[in-house]
Amino acid sequence: MSLDAVERRPGEAVIDLPVERHAALIFIGRIETPWATRAECPRRGDPEHGPDCTVLLDARWQPALEGIAVGDELQLLYWMHRARRDLVTQAPSGRHETLGAFALRSPNRPNPIASSSVRLIAIDGDRLTVRGLDCVSGTPLLDIKPERRGEPSAHRG
Amino acid sequence: MSLDAVERRPGEAVIDLPVERHAALIFIGRIETPWATRAECPRRGDPEHGPDCTVLLDARWQPALEGIAVGDELQLLYWMHRARRDLVTQAPSGRHETLGAFALRSPNRPNPIASSSVRLIAIDGDRLTVRGLDCVSGTPLLDIKPERRGEPSAHRG
Repeated sequence: MSLDAVERRPGEAVIDLPVERHAALIFIGRIETPWATRAECPRRGDPEHGPDCTVLLDARWQPALEGIAVGDELQLLYWMHRARRDLVTQAPSGRHETLGAFALRSPNRPNPIASSSVRLIAIDGDRLTVRGLDCVSGTPLLDIKPERRGEPSAHRG
Repeated sequence: MSLDAVERRPGEAVIDLPVERHAALIFIGRIETPWATRAECPRRGDPEHGPDCTVLLDARWQPALEGIAVGDELQLLYWMHRARRDLVTQAPSGRHETLGAFALRSPNRPNPIASSSVRLIAIDGDRLTVRGLDCVSGTPLLDIKPERRGEPSAHRG
């Protein structure tokens, strides 16, 4: 078992992570929010009322923004770099039950990738102002996609 | 420039990828679908009418399913292992414009992570039957989350 098994909270179960890794991520930018710690973060972002947060895209990816416009609803994927990856069950605060990581949107999961819907408020070169985030400032960005609403798109694995 | 720059299609632009990688992914299972190649895949999955696809979760993660139930709407993240990561602009088939990778849900993007909403039809141990996928059979699975609908959840970066 994991070395820190003795520090588990009630309802938490850990597993030994596999040693091997299968694919590698490139951080493409960084998210700036008003929140320095997880405790300060709202439970859920609000795409309509904000507050405004900033996505600082690395300059090399700026051409990939072509076709995105203010007012768009976007899906952001980002890397929850402070999360634990070995917690398979958790007891969320404020709930009495123990739930699996896949039944929660907790940051703690084997691949701590978050997905949020945001509204694009402004765009200035490689700097995007968005509403709808709930993560700590400094979170690494992984992807920007148009949010899927109604019309078919070309999303094939 | 990339070695295969001469093979670019109209509207495509490539960049040199950064050499460094910043985080590593663990494949947690595999998706089986009726489609062997991207050309066979539907343009978009249908969570209500299917067809049924199978998620084979690696056994070590099975405890993380606790609390998931048949009928749930789930968000699956998976790795589009056949995608190109260096295409910053693309000309989607059937459209006359050139668009950035972030304005498309194309598999070709710096981090080829796909996100789909699916309906859970059946669950049998580490084997899930779902509707709503559109990817090739054999696609590696990255994450399973409850789809966000209405109620707040604890999703913090």
